[in-house]
Amino acid sequence: MTRSTCRVRERVVFEITGSLTSHHFATSWLTHYYHPCFRYVQTLPHSVRKNILLRIASKLVDYQEMILAENAKDLEAAVRDQINENLISRLKLSKSKIATLADGIRQLANQDDPVGRVVRRTELSPGLVVHQVTVPLGVLLIIFESRPDALPQIASLAIYAGCGLILKGGREAVHSNTCLHRLVQEGVVEGSEGQVTGDLVNMVTSRAAVQPLLALDKHIDLVIPRGSGELVRSIQNSTKIPVLGHADGVCHVFVDEAADLTKAIKIVIDAKTDYPAACNAAETLLIHRGLINREGEFIPKLFEALVSAGITMFGGPAAMNVPAIATHMAGITTDFHHEFGTCSMNVEVVDSLDKAVEHIHAYGSGHTECIVTESKEAAVRFTQAVDSACVFHNASTRFADGYRFGLGAEVGISTSRLHARGPVGVDGLTSTKWILESTDPSTLAGAEASAEVPTCHTVSDFSKGVFKYSHKSLPTNNDQQ
Amino acid sequence: MTRSTCRVRERVVFEITGSLTSHHFATSWLTHYYHPCFRYVQTLPHSVRKNILLRIASKLVDYQEMILAENAKDLEAAVRDQINENLISRLKLSKSKIATLADGIRQLANQDDPVGRVVRRTELSPGLVVHQVTVPLGVLLIIFESRPDALPQIASLAIYAGCGLILKGGREAVHSNTCLHRLVQEGVVEGSEGQVTGDLVNMVTSRAAVQPLLALDKHIDLVIPRGSGELVRSIQNSTKIPVLGHADGVCHVFVDEAADLTKAIKIVIDAKTDYPAACNAAETLLIHRGLINREGEFIPKLFEALVSAGITMFGGPAAMNVPAIATHMAGITTDFHHEFGTCSMNVEVVDSLDKAVEHIHAYGSGHTECIVTESKEAAVRFTQAVDSACVFHNASTRFADGYRFGLGAEVGISTSRLHARGPVGVDGLTSTKWILESTDPSTLAGAEASAEVPTCHTVSDFSKGVFKYSHKSLPTNNDQQ
Repeated sequence: MTRSTCRVRERVVFEITGSLTSHHFATSWLTHYYHPCFRYVQTLPHSVRKNILLRIASKLVDYQEMILAENAKDLEAAVRDQINENLISRLKLSKSKIATLADGIRQLANQDDPVGRVVRRTELSPGLVVHQVTVPLGVLLIIFESRPDALPQIASLAIYAGCGLILKGGREAVHSNTCLHRLVQEGVVEGSEGQVTGDLVNMVTSRAAVQPLLALDKHIDLVIPRGSGELVRSIQNSTKIPVLGHADGVCHVFVDEAADLTKAIKIVIDAKTDYPAACNAAETLLIHRGLINREGEFIPKLFEALVSAGITMFGGPAAMNVPAIATHMAGITTDFHHEFGTCSMNVEVVDSLDKAVEHIHAYGSGHTECIVTESKEAAVRFTQAVDSACVFHNASTRFADGYRFGLGAEVGISTSRLHARGPVGVDGLTSTKWILESTDPSTLAGAEASAEVPTCHTVSDFSKGVFKYSHKSLPTNNDQQ
Repeated sequence: MTRSTCRVRERVVFEITGSLTSHHFATSWLTHYYHPCFRYVQTLPHSVRKNILLRIASKLVDYQEMILAENAKDLEAAVRDQINENLISRLKLSKSKIATLADGIRQLANQDDPVGRVVRRTELSPGLVVHQVTVPLGVLLIIFESRPDALPQIASLAIYAGCGLILKGGREAVHSNTCLHRLVQEGVVEGSEGQVTGDLVNMVTSRAAVQPLLALDKHIDLVIPRGSGELVRSIQNSTKIPVLGHADGVCHVFVDEAADLTKAIKIVIDAKTDYPAACNAAETLLIHRGLINREGEFIPKLFEALVSAGITMFGGPAAMNVPAIATHMAGITTDFHHEFGTCSMNVEVVDSLDKAVEHIHAYGSGHTECIVTESKEAAVRFTQAVDSACVFHNASTRFADGYRFGLGAEVGISTSRLHARGPVGVDGLTSTKWILESTDPSTLAGAEASAEVPTCHTVSDFSKGVFKYSHKSLPTNNDQQ
């Protein structure tokens, strides 16, 4: 691509105005403006994408006071509008949240380039080699609700993966989002030394602009809704574009017969109270029946500790039949597939590890489950049998997170089984392409000089037996790049 | 899992009868019978899955006369019903097709186990290690049209990946499918030495049974339609379950300015005529304008060779303006996004390599494209710029195939950008799961004896600074397993 072409493409305006509310206009905009620009973004070298991320991270820290001041305006409005407590806790930014965010973006920028990585390299026959390489996933539409820290995180992931990006922020976070969006845009311009305009990262603000975008399944490759289960379900029901995310986070902690009491207490308290509004907070505590008569007052001590930690519990039928447990319950369970999002949780007694697994498969959301046990055998059996995105042994469900897993930032946690599952980092924003290269077989070392040797590769030569498939796996040579 | 549990699960009947036509019954069947069975299938060891595949491959060869006799009945009926030529060519089996099929299944059985492979292993902090491991994708619904060889191929892929499988064959291939299905079932029983019943692989035969299955997006993880673009589109429009496949295969061959004439002729003829009904057959020939006045009569020789090979061509506006090309055209192009499926193709002249890429992005289906050129630079630019699942240099588009790519069998070719793209082998039928294992930090070598050391891992200990994230990448150790 010549320099002049780049310049022309740079000047194409990446702009969605509030008037982008008709299907026709949205299609036209994406086809004629955004897609050519996205194809240019796809070709940005790794060094430029890395610089952009480092600039974004610095700007977040440099301007944290400004971000917090804008965030305070949103919080004030939220309190005034009596928005619910969960949403407010997601909306609220803090210096430590910003520091973690910047840290995650730097961690991401120091990862190997996710684009152009050779996944597989195979010689099909002498002179014919296929390379499966990673490429940007495409154009993403990200819809937020409340959590403004998701904006720079997701923008960084999209830029690093070479993807096009259209953001839609929640009305309740408008001040925070506008501020963060501007910082991201400045990071793009400064990090690329003016090669790319800030319009690379789009943001639409009106709800009316979303519906026509959701209809563009030919032009937008993935929708990522970040927010409540209702938001995710409503998006899933109104688009044919694939949706990455999770509608529910009904996570379980199973306290096995062979559990250590101290660990059980620490893990349940952390899983429930560390951040109750998070999707990876535990909602249901399953107790192995074998613990009920265990010496050392396991059950009374466990439940006393949970109550002292401020956890409100609701018991299922089997739990209510155990007086030592029932006495600590605030009421009976009405629904085991329930995400409290507060310091409340359901409790049930199960007869065995297998019954715990069955309970999880019946009522869980396939997000994250934990077994507390000192038995290696039980741990292995549980982690193999539970069919969820994340399965933990003696560690809090709260670890289910892209930053904690070392992925840098995350676009979200997927409970889908396709494409990406669990915390999704930058690798989840790539696809692959197969490149097949033919070298004239007669020019290969060791080839016999013969007029019969074909000069290129056709399938019919293989059917006729002129060539044979060798299917030799070759090293990917990623380290040499 | 104890032996007796296995026995009980084996006896659960994997059966869909013709009466499976109501949503209620289909849901109930999947929830109560099929899902528990699928979870048992998930746990089959690699050796059993491998044996099943080897038995299926042998049976296909041993019973090829029977298969061909059943296939002949379908062909006879197809001719009688005046079914179109494309469908008949897909319907027809041959000894060489069966041999290739069996070979692909054996190749697959000799691949490493796709399940339980460690994709990523990271120490989050001393004693806390996360493993991302491959797991079966889930329950698949595969809908065929005409091509009966897809049945054993896909059944083998599904079994090898530990997936549940429900098949729906086309009415026109009923004899072939019934025979192949029985052979696959026998392979399952014999290969597992009776541990698994043949009902592991289900087949529904009535069209009425499909609609209620397509509504079960909570229970079925992936639908794979194998057949015409109309079939794929109709499935995509009638389900919320993710669909893997391609609605169109509008593949291009671009003959660059620096092309070699012999290669151009060989590749275009192979790409168009080797199997015109295939999705990877070329539909459009793009000619670089620079070739028009090239000495050595490049254009006349190329088009004379194509006409001699029996290719009927339709010219676009620019092609019709070049007399040396127009004279070989049978008519003018009416639609550049057209899949002929016969020995016909569109032809257009483009001004440059970039214009060829633009044409492909505007009219292609993102399936497979080829550049014929002696210029290394042009080849690299084309393979990077073209955003299709497969991009080839001096090799026929017909190579876009799982068997030819060395994947063993294939479930299909995906033009989606998510999950799997291009030819999809067994790896496309796996998902991943994150397993997090905590070891009591105080028991680790080098740990200081301290009452303050926590005994398990909670997120709040990290926020408080008791622990720090190390995020150390560890070897996956797949070779040791």
